[in-house]
Amino acid sequence: MSYTKIDQYLEKNLDGSIAELSELVAQPSVGAQNWGMQECAQLTARLLAKRGFTVEVLPTGGAPVVFAERKGRNADKTLLFYNHYDVQPAEPLELWETPPFEPSLRNGKLFGRGVSDDKSHITARLYAIDALLDSDGELPCNVKFLIEGEEETGSIHLPKFITANKGKLAADACIWEFGGVDHREVPMQYLGLRGICYVELSIETAAIDVHSGVGGSIFENAAWRLVWALNTLKDQNEKILIPGWYDGIEPPTARDRELFDLQPDAAEEYKTRYGVKKFLKGVTGGTDLFMQETFEPTCTICGLTSGYQGPGSKTVLPARASAKVDFRLAPGQKIERCLTLLRQHLDSGGFEEIQIEFLGGGPAAKTNPDDPFIKLVVETAEEVFESRMELIPMVGGSGPNYPFVHELNMPVATAGLGYPDTRAHAPNENIRLDLYVKHARHMARVLKEFGK
Amino acid sequence: MSYTKIDQYLEKNLDGSIAELSELVAQPSVGAQNWGMQECAQLTARLLAKRGFTVEVLPTGGAPVVFAERKGRNADKTLLFYNHYDVQPAEPLELWETPPFEPSLRNGKLFGRGVSDDKSHITARLYAIDALLDSDGELPCNVKFLIEGEEETGSIHLPKFITANKGKLAADACIWEFGGVDHREVPMQYLGLRGICYVELSIETAAIDVHSGVGGSIFENAAWRLVWALNTLKDQNEKILIPGWYDGIEPPTARDRELFDLQPDAAEEYKTRYGVKKFLKGVTGGTDLFMQETFEPTCTICGLTSGYQGPGSKTVLPARASAKVDFRLAPGQKIERCLTLLRQHLDSGGFEEIQIEFLGGGPAAKTNPDDPFIKLVVETAEEVFESRMELIPMVGGSGPNYPFVHELNMPVATAGLGYPDTRAHAPNENIRLDLYVKHARHMARVLKEFGK
Repeated sequence: MSYTKIDQYLEKNLDGSIAELSELVAQPSVGAQNWGMQECAQLTARLLAKRGFTVEVLPTGGAPVVFAERKGRNADKTLLFYNHYDVQPAEPLELWETPPFEPSLRNGKLFGRGVSDDKSHITARLYAIDALLDSDGELPCNVKFLIEGEEETGSIHLPKFITANKGKLAADACIWEFGGVDHREVPMQYLGLRGICYVELSIETAAIDVHSGVGGSIFENAAWRLVWALNTLKDQNEKILIPGWYDGIEPPTARDRELFDLQPDAAEEYKTRYGVKKFLKGVTGGTDLFMQETFEPTCTICGLTSGYQGPGSKTVLPARASAKVDFRLAPGQKIERCLTLLRQHLDSGGFEEIQIEFLGGGPAAKTNPDDPFIKLVVETAEEVFESRMELIPMVGGSGPNYPFVHELNMPVATAGLGYPDTRAHAPNENIRLDLYVKHARHMARVLKEFGK
Repeated sequence: MSYTKIDQYLEKNLDGSIAELSELVAQPSVGAQNWGMQECAQLTARLLAKRGFTVEVLPTGGAPVVFAERKGRNADKTLLFYNHYDVQPAEPLELWETPPFEPSLRNGKLFGRGVSDDKSHITARLYAIDALLDSDGELPCNVKFLIEGEEETGSIHLPKFITANKGKLAADACIWEFGGVDHREVPMQYLGLRGICYVELSIETAAIDVHSGVGGSIFENAAWRLVWALNTLKDQNEKILIPGWYDGIEPPTARDRELFDLQPDAAEEYKTRYGVKKFLKGVTGGTDLFMQETFEPTCTICGLTSGYQGPGSKTVLPARASAKVDFRLAPGQKIERCLTLLRQHLDSGGFEEIQIEFLGGGPAAKTNPDDPFIKLVVETAEEVFESRMELIPMVGGSGPNYPFVHELNMPVATAGLGYPDTRAHAPNENIRLDLYVKHARHMARVLKEFGK
């Protein structure tokens, strides 16, 4: 099949698609701060309606889901795109070279909060659809979009939404919200996502902050209580100390290890990219580094706050302290059980007064590397990227793939336009325009081959 | 000696003095944030010049010192007032009932940042001077004011300034910047101040923040490193774990304990005021509570900051973390030695990468409870407060009394208008106007008796 006409369309109309992406990035949609969510959902809906999709903005109990569908030539095949319109907070603002919500194009890259994660993946897929409609006048198969607004805050309402809308969401396969190339420009197929259980631990020890000269030796200090409690969660060798935490974990398979063995060592590249000198637990690289990065449960402090944090000194005994803690889960670990174990552990350590607020999460899930849909996505990538797409059994990040794999029973393939310096979740998040076009070309091919 | 005329003056002219205090409070002077320091020094100088003092605004290397003197009838006796025009940061701003730098008068109290600590002590003393000048046309003795601008940030340049200006500052006795009544309305004479060594501990583990899904199990986390390091500083029984920390401490004397024995139990009052249920280390009240509050070395976390601290969740692995830590020192503990011990302790625990920034401090010092000047201050208080002033051998707070006691060789007496709900260093800091007048009456008496 020739893709000449489609590829030409995608070379010629880039400015228009990037303008559409810029409009989407300029609309803040910071879920954690409940900033611009409705506006961004409506804008996303308009972009879909423009392409002739039937669009619904559906309530979830939190930020709404944008659901869209359009029939295609092959009425028996349906492809579901999963995306999200919410973005991470932009802080720390002072580290951005240009304002996070004023998209800035320089050196073939577009910068802005959410430009990579995940707004470009929405518009690049619409761009592929534009090219197919331009070339053929119709879509090759039925296409559905499920675009949620709570991915960055743990997709807290999505699993229930999926259970309640199984018929509406029914499809044969799913293209996931992200994907991309590694530092060699090789496209990656991510087959599994780690689970996550994100909590805020907080403590209040007094009604008011007290002068530290007065209270320092006689009143409890919220910051100290928090430090001592956190210290009981993980030792300096990264072992999580909560009893029972590692029980029930499904270990990686021989096939998982085999797939990682095929990958080139990433150690030097990681060191350069992140400015670190070594890795935790003494691993030096190779498959061991990948296995630790992706299959290990973690306990990460994402934020600490207490007392005075401005310049200079303030002599105060803090009455309140809190920590944001992100537990990544291996396959087999269940959210409810983890929360119960955490509570029991804090209580048995004398930290009954520490409050646990669950801020979102879900279990880990994996797609079979030998599924025919995975094969199709891998094969269509080859011509576009001039490189064989590689299979990664699991990544360290998380996402709500569990209900797609286990409720909707569909294979989930990743394909996208990320690259190592894309800075998702960090200041100066950006995309490369060349990869934007490649992703659209890839998606046009996936849809066309899938519709056959 | 009759104080009728003076007391009448102080009853009648309160509005004017409070207007002057309000002007001083409305001028922010937050040393930690270098906000308004020069402006506040100049305003303070103008208030003194208005009373015929010879005023100098002198450089220190940091915020300037305001020095003022005026001769009195008895040329052989000189009283030195030590005050400060700097204030604590007003944060957290959301807990203030009225804006911190817009003085607000309600229910016989004046609210505002710095109103109690220490601006009212400046204007109430000037108010006493106004009354003496009105009554006698002259001051009873020579009066000097040393008003610094770095008290809340550790008086970092004051000891050197005092050494370099011994002649200028020479006096027979000193009235300290603070003082006040306890919950029974009994005035307190504080004879000693704990030392302080305030540091910021900080760590940077990577060039940039990383997505916690990617980095959580392979990269060092600055927040975790900080938590583990802090945990080695103090155990849950409040014992400081830095080797050698308690060496060289001069234990409290039998007289110190005897003076505390005379004090009524403060346990219930503390619990009510601060909203706490119990005290550290199982003390329940009485002299044990006072001894622990004032003579024990402490290690207080005054602030913690790392990573994401906004609402909701952000999945980030922080590259930076820091803690503000306030070590209070018992008599005999030296700053330099403490800093050296802290560095050695962190290094030997594998925390060489943690930076220590010294943000200010000084050693503890005490005035002899049997000094004749202390007796004068106690006796003159009795008529004003209708209660015998009580002797407190040591307080938990700190201040730069060491160079006054050990370089200028003068007794230091405390007298002031503080009261238990004055909320120094906390939101809704305030003074009571009735105590403002009483302090002015007391100071007029001290000056007059001292000049005899």
